[in-house]
Amino acid sequence: MDTHRILFELFVIFVAAKAVGEIFERVGQPPVIGELLVGMALGPHALGVVGDSEAHRTLAELGAVVLLFMVGLDTRLPEVRAVGTRALAVGSLGVVFPFGFGAVYIAATGHAGEEAAFMGAAMVATSVGITARVLSDLGVVSALESRIIIGAAVVDDVLGLLVLAVVSGFSDGGLSVPGIAVLCLEAVGFVVVLGVLGVRMVNAAAARIEATRIQRGPLAAALAVCLGLAALADAVGLAAIIGAFLAGMAFAEVRPRWDLENQVEPVYQLLVPFFFVITGARVDIARLTDPSSLGMVAAITGLAIAGKLIGCGGAAWGMGRRSVAIVGVGMVPRGEVGIIVASVGLAEGVIGQDLYGVVVAMSIITTLAAPPILKILFAGRVSAPAIRGGPRTIEMEGIGG
Amino acid sequence: MDTHRILFELFVIFVAAKAVGEIFERVGQPPVIGELLVGMALGPHALGVVGDSEAHRTLAELGAVVLLFMVGLDTRLPEVRAVGTRALAVGSLGVVFPFGFGAVYIAATGHAGEEAAFMGAAMVATSVGITARVLSDLGVVSALESRIIIGAAVVDDVLGLLVLAVVSGFSDGGLSVPGIAVLCLEAVGFVVVLGVLGVRMVNAAAARIEATRIQRGPLAAALAVCLGLAALADAVGLAAIIGAFLAGMAFAEVRPRWDLENQVEPVYQLLVPFFFVITGARVDIARLTDPSSLGMVAAITGLAIAGKLIGCGGAAWGMGRRSVAIVGVGMVPRGEVGIIVASVGLAEGVIGQDLYGVVVAMSIITTLAAPPILKILFAGRVSAPAIRGGPRTIEMEGIGG
Repeated sequence: MDTHRILFELFVIFVAAKAVGEIFERVGQPPVIGELLVGMALGPHALGVVGDSEAHRTLAELGAVVLLFMVGLDTRLPEVRAVGTRALAVGSLGVVFPFGFGAVYIAATGHAGEEAAFMGAAMVATSVGITARVLSDLGVVSALESRIIIGAAVVDDVLGLLVLAVVSGFSDGGLSVPGIAVLCLEAVGFVVVLGVLGVRMVNAAAARIEATRIQRGPLAAALAVCLGLAALADAVGLAAIIGAFLAGMAFAEVRPRWDLENQVEPVYQLLVPFFFVITGARVDIARLTDPSSLGMVAAITGLAIAGKLIGCGGAAWGMGRRSVAIVGVGMVPRGEVGIIVASVGLAEGVIGQDLYGVVVAMSIITTLAAPPILKILFAGRVSAPAIRGGPRTIEMEGIGG
Repeated sequence: MDTHRILFELFVIFVAAKAVGEIFERVGQPPVIGELLVGMALGPHALGVVGDSEAHRTLAELGAVVLLFMVGLDTRLPEVRAVGTRALAVGSLGVVFPFGFGAVYIAATGHAGEEAAFMGAAMVATSVGITARVLSDLGVVSALESRIIIGAAVVDDVLGLLVLAVVSGFSDGGLSVPGIAVLCLEAVGFVVVLGVLGVRMVNAAAARIEATRIQRGPLAAALAVCLGLAALADAVGLAAIIGAFLAGMAFAEVRPRWDLENQVEPVYQLLVPFFFVITGARVDIARLTDPSSLGMVAAITGLAIAGKLIGCGGAAWGMGRRSVAIVGVGMVPRGEVGIIVASVGLAEGVIGQDLYGVVVAMSIITTLAAPPILKILFAGRVSAPAIRGGPRTIEMEGIGG
């Protein structure tokens, strides 16, 4: 009988997300922020309409998977290769600086080394979901900087999860140096193999997929690969959304022929709001504004922003001032991965409830701060010749929510 | 972390459903049966790959809601009015006969009066989900008989839930005659008011919905109303799918202008298989084939089929022999509602595990038996002039899975 209550909750989440999204569109702000705020208002720490049940988490996870699949659909391998080196540099330096800043600051304020390592790890991963959504709302997914940001976000998500594996392995003493090496190889191998071979495999199977008799066979095949690679990424210790992104990339070449973007978009419109509302619902507003932790929140948030601006902006050096700023700011939002790292630290007893709250607050502030700035930075860039794929940009407008 | 396991299960369910659906298409059988069998094979009573978690139940519920919304989208009010009296007769007699047959047989085999009442109640409701899916797989949703069947299935779902309320109220002594009257009025009022006013309300709001700035505003409005009426139907004690069906009907007139069918269909393709696979997963094959209960299963199944053929076929008298057969057979499948009634009886201690198993077996057999017969009956009818809306029939082919 509890599925009944859930149907009501899903209705409230969906209507509130769309209504507030409409208001945000009208005042010229990215709807995704509206959805996060809806989550904060409806969540267990405020009105309590939205719980944190398995059903909610599953829909949120499916929403994140569909979002990254959609981003992958618009990411073509040759274009990734073109930005590959730069994305690797941006992603790597964007891990090194925030980790260093966070760990040194926490150690300097009298915490133990393990706490410092965990807090550093929690500051590493850019929330590719948030950034991708903002880029897609702005209709600039295929801009050069966007492709670098998304590529770098994939890189730092991989590195972020490796850092988590390392610090968590050291803290419980269960991870050996060979164990870490295996995990690293698995992760890198997964991304490289699928990134390179995915397109070829889909192209090779395309004729057979088109010959299926079930309704919308190509869509079914794409969704199946999306779910499968998400589950596989998960199984090898990566974030599920990385698998979904690689699945999208694999179908990027057949996308126009199968009209995949138009077919996946209704699913996106239904499921993606759940991801953002439920991410927002996890934020405890009281903790966010507790005076005793405001100083720590300010310091960690400042270092988290500075780490990405210096690390990622630095790696983007030479692209022109505005592009450097876009790449730096685009990498600022933290989200699920940082919160997951903090949860692991909390569960293992390495960090306390106070530092956990600081990580969540940092995630939400960086998430709220980056989109308006990105919007301003891109506004001065919209008619610039460096934006490629004008027609695709127009198509992509359909994606935002 | 348990969302990870779920992602894997969803992948397995989706791929197996689509793959077996493809095989069934190729051998000329409705894919929905393939999906039910996939559920039986993967379910906790067989391979155990698919559990019965809240996430599964929620996705299954959403699948059923989307299915009935899609059927509603293709049901226009004037056409329902045209079949209204007939559907009311078919639905009502289709409740009276199975209830009578079931209750008398159970009482005659030495069970208590309460047991007889519960078993009769569990034999009443046609599974409109199964029937609608078969009709949509066959591309005949807009045929005269299909509209009568779907209208009658809504009628008997309403009546079936009222019968449950009555027998369950008597068995725990908690329901008064005024209480039953209120429940009846609520249910009938809900269907009539929304059925009549829904279209007008949507038409009145259409211009405002088209003026929204969010991406795919009309789709968002339709999905919001669908979720909202499903939750509301639930709240007034009806099946959620009745609300979803009425929501679809409300949008039937703006459907072509907003291209709603094409937009909802990808969501259908993703979610509906979960409903059928998870319905199949609830079947305990061992119980189905237990020799001691086979006699009872055969008797109850025979009476369940005879009750609908006599009651519904009788009410369709005068439509021509083939149409009478289509209406009778189309009302035969039982499903969720009957199983829910049996679960309530089991939970209240009125019926035992043995009779519960009999109801589940009866549901699955009637569900498996009806589609192939319907297919044969419609095959002789496809080019007949009585099928209206040829172009819509072609459009509808996109719905089947």
